[in-house]
Amino acid sequence: MPRQPVSHRALIGAVEGTLADFLACQIASLDTVDPALGGFARTARDLVMAGGKRIRPTFAYWGWRGVVGSAEPIEGVLPALGALELMHTFALVHDDLMDGSATRRGRPTAHRLFAAQHGDRFGDSAAILVGDLCLVWADQLLARTALPPANLLDVRTRYDRMRVEAVAGQYLDVLGETVPSTWSVERALLVARHKTASYTVQWPLGFGLALAPASAVADPAIEEAYRIYGLAVGEAFQLRDDLLGVYGDPAITGKPACDDLRTGKPTTLLMLARRLATTAQLDELTVAGVTRQAEIIAATGAPAQVEEMIRSRVEEGVTAIAEAPIRPDARAALIELATAATHRPA
Amino acid sequence: MPRQPVSHRALIGAVEGTLADFLACQIASLDTVDPALGGFARTARDLVMAGGKRIRPTFAYWGWRGVVGSAEPIEGVLPALGALELMHTFALVHDDLMDGSATRRGRPTAHRLFAAQHGDRFGDSAAILVGDLCLVWADQLLARTALPPANLLDVRTRYDRMRVEAVAGQYLDVLGETVPSTWSVERALLVARHKTASYTVQWPLGFGLALAPASAVADPAIEEAYRIYGLAVGEAFQLRDDLLGVYGDPAITGKPACDDLRTGKPTTLLMLARRLATTAQLDELTVAGVTRQAEIIAATGAPAQVEEMIRSRVEEGVTAIAEAPIRPDARAALIELATAATHRPA
Repeated sequence: MPRQPVSHRALIGAVEGTLADFLACQIASLDTVDPALGGFARTARDLVMAGGKRIRPTFAYWGWRGVVGSAEPIEGVLPALGALELMHTFALVHDDLMDGSATRRGRPTAHRLFAAQHGDRFGDSAAILVGDLCLVWADQLLARTALPPANLLDVRTRYDRMRVEAVAGQYLDVLGETVPSTWSVERALLVARHKTASYTVQWPLGFGLALAPASAVADPAIEEAYRIYGLAVGEAFQLRDDLLGVYGDPAITGKPACDDLRTGKPTTLLMLARRLATTAQLDELTVAGVTRQAEIIAATGAPAQVEEMIRSRVEEGVTAIAEAPIRPDARAALIELATAATHRPA
Repeated sequence: MPRQPVSHRALIGAVEGTLADFLACQIASLDTVDPALGGFARTARDLVMAGGKRIRPTFAYWGWRGVVGSAEPIEGVLPALGALELMHTFALVHDDLMDGSATRRGRPTAHRLFAAQHGDRFGDSAAILVGDLCLVWADQLLARTALPPANLLDVRTRYDRMRVEAVAGQYLDVLGETVPSTWSVERALLVARHKTASYTVQWPLGFGLALAPASAVADPAIEEAYRIYGLAVGEAFQLRDDLLGVYGDPAITGKPACDDLRTGKPTTLLMLARRLATTAQLDELTVAGVTRQAEIIAATGAPAQVEEMIRSRVEEGVTAIAEAPIRPDARAALIELATAATHRPA
């Protein structure tokens, strides 16, 4: 593994290597208490290591690299980057349980894996616990980051705010699915902002910035550029997710076709379609099967409008970062990521 | 509120005041994002403030006071003591959901409160999230503890290990309820050790010790006395819980009568009853209703043996602490607590 990842692949490899080492230690420790706990920890590890885009560590890395020279080795911040991915596994495991999702990344979700061992009730309980364990592990890995005391409080404050945003955003998401008749385009965008934008892009960038030596982050223009970029690109990321949740290829997304329509998730896409629909379309949307619903949504013109919303947000984010006083390699990478994260097949 | 709690009541009042202030801030912050989030946070606050024995902050307080003179004000460590209680609310909310418990402390459990708003599915999801929120809040409150950097790593390490133990112990508990035929007295005691003893007494005591100025904790005899006392009194605490789970007065415990028998929890009490039972008793135990089950268990002599196990553990804990080189007021309090925590009506 190179000391300084020059490619995205090398960065992901370094983060995953850190995760693998950490998880091997935790498994060994729980194995000594009881083999059943070792098995529980191995399932957690498999969920963490099952792939995924590792998008939060990536944004955190570039948030850090934006103010730290390329001579600075990455090793010191790898535990913090890995912690974001462990925390994300916590969020995915609990979200999948709440949504009743059967697959994730093309594999059975946590509650399904455990249900296959001892039935549905055990599956649900063990999934709650495996999520809890990943959240605690994330903290343990974060604590291994070599940070000067001056940075520590700032890093933890941002990390905690990111976690509160993720939980609060998911609560709004669940509420919207429960009482979809009370939802609107505006509320769907509020969820996108809090559940995805801040948690996926804005806070990881700011978290990465806080990992840098305090002297490097004195310029408030950087903080502001990351904030604007994070919210704009993060919302665009969620809007792409909305489109993929209806029109994504299950072979690529690893989720069933029309998954969002099955669960009735009141996404910006669906709320917009309802607003644009004719009375006849609206009536049919209420009673149609999910495949026909997807056709009606397309006919309203909502997907084209969502594409335009993505485009304008990516442009806003790119503009903010293009003018930010950060290192050129980070600027180029974040500009590329703005497009890659919002024009993706899965 | 006195600066130095002289009574148990004053200590609990100080911890609850810290919690109330912290929670009011969090509610105000989430209210500004969306009133629905403010409501969510208020439910979390009501769960935290609904009472309870506050036993973990109490043990942590005396673990700290054991090496810190009575002139040292408590204010600096109050956030850390409150964090233990927030973390405990997380554990209770998730445990109640897994156990399908309807009441806690005489009030509806979290998932029931939310189910009353928008149905069972929403209730379960919101309970997972309110537990998650309390766990993150616990970290935020812990971060407000005024600690020298030298203590910080030690405090967090103990806190993280306590949390892993709590999750791992609950996993074993759920596994035992799922496959009770594979359980034994030995495995039930393993659960008691990891789920309750270490999480409720041993780690809180050690966590409190770590809050003291580093120079004060140089004596390894204190650490060892806390460890022995914590495991012995903690196991006794769980064994009392086992007895209360079958023979406790619902009006005092706040839980339904024979709650453990209803869920089939393979407690030490039940495992011991099965081991002691005659063939006829064992056959009847399998088919009887919960009230009759409680009678059969009594007839096996298991409750009397569990009482003896409690007595010998309390004695072991008291002996360890009586000889520990800690401050006399803390020694006296911990000796009193060993009895109070294991001879309680709820």
